[in-house]
Amino acid sequence: MNAAQDKFKNFEHIFFPKSIAVVGASAHEHKLGNGFLGALVHAGYKGKLYAVNPAGGNIFGLDVYPSVQAIPGPVEYVIVVIPRQGVLKLLDDCAEKGVKAVQFFTAGFSECGEEKWKQVEQEMVKKARAGGFRIVGPNCVGVYSPANIQPLGFIDKVGEVGPVAFVAQSGGHAERFLEYGLSRGIGFSKAVSFGNGSDLDSSDYFEYLASDPQTQILASYLEGVKDGRRLFQLIKEINKTKPAVIWKGGRTKAGAQAAASHTASLAASDAVWTGALRQAGAIKVESLEEMGDTVQILHHLGKFRGNRVCILAGLTGGGGGESVSATDACVGTGLEVPPFDEDTRTRLSAIVRQEGTIQRNPLDIGGLGSNLDILGNTLQLLDSTTNMDLLILNINVGSILRMSPPGRLWEMMSLFVEFKRNSKKPLVVVSYPGLSEANRLEVEDFLAKASVPVFPTIDRAARALMNTLGYWEFRDRLEQDGGRPCIDKETHVRSADN
Amino acid sequence: MNAAQDKFKNFEHIFFPKSIAVVGASAHEHKLGNGFLGALVHAGYKGKLYAVNPAGGNIFGLDVYPSVQAIPGPVEYVIVVIPRQGVLKLLDDCAEKGVKAVQFFTAGFSECGEEKWKQVEQEMVKKARAGGFRIVGPNCVGVYSPANIQPLGFIDKVGEVGPVAFVAQSGGHAERFLEYGLSRGIGFSKAVSFGNGSDLDSSDYFEYLASDPQTQILASYLEGVKDGRRLFQLIKEINKTKPAVIWKGGRTKAGAQAAASHTASLAASDAVWTGALRQAGAIKVESLEEMGDTVQILHHLGKFRGNRVCILAGLTGGGGGESVSATDACVGTGLEVPPFDEDTRTRLSAIVRQEGTIQRNPLDIGGLGSNLDILGNTLQLLDSTTNMDLLILNINVGSILRMSPPGRLWEMMSLFVEFKRNSKKPLVVVSYPGLSEANRLEVEDFLAKASVPVFPTIDRAARALMNTLGYWEFRDRLEQDGGRPCIDKETHVRSADN
Repeated sequence: MNAAQDKFKNFEHIFFPKSIAVVGASAHEHKLGNGFLGALVHAGYKGKLYAVNPAGGNIFGLDVYPSVQAIPGPVEYVIVVIPRQGVLKLLDDCAEKGVKAVQFFTAGFSECGEEKWKQVEQEMVKKARAGGFRIVGPNCVGVYSPANIQPLGFIDKVGEVGPVAFVAQSGGHAERFLEYGLSRGIGFSKAVSFGNGSDLDSSDYFEYLASDPQTQILASYLEGVKDGRRLFQLIKEINKTKPAVIWKGGRTKAGAQAAASHTASLAASDAVWTGALRQAGAIKVESLEEMGDTVQILHHLGKFRGNRVCILAGLTGGGGGESVSATDACVGTGLEVPPFDEDTRTRLSAIVRQEGTIQRNPLDIGGLGSNLDILGNTLQLLDSTTNMDLLILNINVGSILRMSPPGRLWEMMSLFVEFKRNSKKPLVVVSYPGLSEANRLEVEDFLAKASVPVFPTIDRAARALMNTLGYWEFRDRLEQDGGRPCIDKETHVRSADN
Repeated sequence: MNAAQDKFKNFEHIFFPKSIAVVGASAHEHKLGNGFLGALVHAGYKGKLYAVNPAGGNIFGLDVYPSVQAIPGPVEYVIVVIPRQGVLKLLDDCAEKGVKAVQFFTAGFSECGEEKWKQVEQEMVKKARAGGFRIVGPNCVGVYSPANIQPLGFIDKVGEVGPVAFVAQSGGHAERFLEYGLSRGIGFSKAVSFGNGSDLDSSDYFEYLASDPQTQILASYLEGVKDGRRLFQLIKEINKTKPAVIWKGGRTKAGAQAAASHTASLAASDAVWTGALRQAGAIKVESLEEMGDTVQILHHLGKFRGNRVCILAGLTGGGGGESVSATDACVGTGLEVPPFDEDTRTRLSAIVRQEGTIQRNPLDIGGLGSNLDILGNTLQLLDSTTNMDLLILNINVGSILRMSPPGRLWEMMSLFVEFKRNSKKPLVVVSYPGLSEANRLEVEDFLAKASVPVFPTIDRAARALMNTLGYWEFRDRLEQDGGRPCIDKETHVRSADN
């Protein structure tokens, strides 16, 4: 076995272990050691599952072993939820048992700023090296691997397997991003929150995911990096075939100080990250929402070209103001909202009456959207326009319910989904919050399951579309250049000056 | 009666009519003429309500009259939902009947670009002048007046009466803003969507609301204005005592073209609006969400000073990443996130353990937030800090449910509300969407009813806080200058150059 294969074998132990022990397992509900074990049990982890606690007993029907060594069979992966005082002894036990990887929720090491605990963290890595196993964390929520039914932290379910991998230097953001993804029909290949990354760092996970055939889209929240040159080189390689969406926490000075306290990260300046990520062709985002929105577009729309949007402003009235603000939002972000051509206008006037409608782009069809024939014919017409690349539909579920016969909402949404299956242009829906929230959530779930991207504001939709368009343009340039890495002039000049 | 009193009397007919007739009332559910009448019936309008339709019959238990003249009693306000061909004849009927104001949902006039219908719109105004009544619209959803149980359009309920007035040149945005407000505990004095504003324009409504004692906060969506000088002078006057939040649609060239098609508005450039609104001390916003968010802060927090925020990053774990991104969002917007002083750090270390917590600002108390004693003591301590002005609490309802005993979520939220009642510092909550949406919506409703501002992202919270802080600083400067209108240097210089 060569070095590369060996390296990937480490990750197989992390993302596909056949046995897991939770050390610090607790019978007390809502204790941390109960939550980790409970999530594995309730999600339905298929491998051998063991609980470890000196107190013994039985939790979720599992016998509790006093130590890792006391477990009868082999243990591939260990999840640690004990106080920091016990971690070095535990690692000796793990080495003796022959485990392959250890994940530490346990925190209070280098990130707390005390020399003593910084040294303990270094000692942990030494023990891992000597014992021939790897460490995930410490100070992390750890792994999510739906194909192996490994849930993330306390979230006791796994979603569909899909193309998105997420690498996060924050357990909270990992959970929130997973929640975003699961509620928007996004499938994950695997995710990991790696905390302090004392052994395996972002670069290690990126390297594995670069060659992981299940991963086609990489998203990451980072606070710092040990070896920036290696990371950016990896991102540049990844971006040639898989879009990388990077959210760098600590872009402000105060934010960087918070990052140092969180994961002991020493961050380079935001300008350095911005330049390096741009040169690597990565999509740099500034919030969890923007990261999720961008991944949603990448996941649901795949590759598409062209920034000219066709906007259906309102379906059941109220589309006039929306036509103005949607245009402002799109054009303000860099999308184009071109006028309909003569042919489209002529055909449109045969579908909708003049009174109370605005027959331009954005199109306001007054209250006619709840007429399924008119809605269907209008969508077909918009899909056939030759000078537009994308379709954005604005919906207000409350308004549809007020203005339409019972059941019509679902007929309209089914029509959207059917249209999406056959349409030539990518379709995006903006669904506004209001007074019919339960119905709105049902609608969004329905659309998400059909891989229709849904956003709560037009601004967020426009930004996500521009982010992805920028990436696909980067890929086009790369292909035109015959695969030569794209040099960003601005960054290039700046580094030449140094 | 002097001219000013007479002018305000017009508005009393619009916002407090004792009788309303819906012309074009329909028995067919989900027809427009059914929706307007139904909303009045279901909301419980207390005045005399009449239905008019040549077809006759009975709708919602009301006799249908063939014409306005056929109504036996007096009619103060008329809502028109008939095709445009019939409006001039109807206005003759209204004049004969002695009505005081007529609201036109009917559209297809100057905004459609045809000379014929532009002239009809002018003729309508002439008939109103001659008949001694006023027109609301045309091309609008009209009035919302909760004190008089006048619902907006098809929304068949009215909320609490409160200090916010909304003036909108779009029915759709009026509805959406009302939905935002009702779901966030915002009380309205009155709202109006005035469409083309052929008779009464934004300036007229602003003038009335400036002297309306029920109105303490003015929000407005505008696409254009007939007399800019008058409008800006009014906004300048209003801002001396009531914050005006203005969203100007059509800030991009393409958006302005959409506005021309929507309400026949000819917009001045965005730079002119920006300069004039800044000089008038108005809060200029760029989206419906930003308008709602800003009004939410104004409504719930009243006047406050200081941009130094104290952030509680996470209550039940996952606060580490949040502490970084919340800092970035706040500092990036212009808020400050100062460090705790020595005394606070000392007292804090007596409340929360070191391991797994980050005892700085933002504060991450690890998973300890579900311990009510610790949570309460922590909030009290943060409230007592002398170098902070505001408190922002981050919550993830899904995480709280996963990490806490049953029922604890509501105990924590009750603790928030109790804390808010007695706290010295204004309190803002950021509540992240996730996988527990039904519970999240319940929580947000509970907090909103207790006048706690709630936002779905930290970026939106930070922006809204900065917007309102800017306004209160403007007021402070104004008072220091002894009431002299504040001259904005940048704008002043620019206009001096012309």
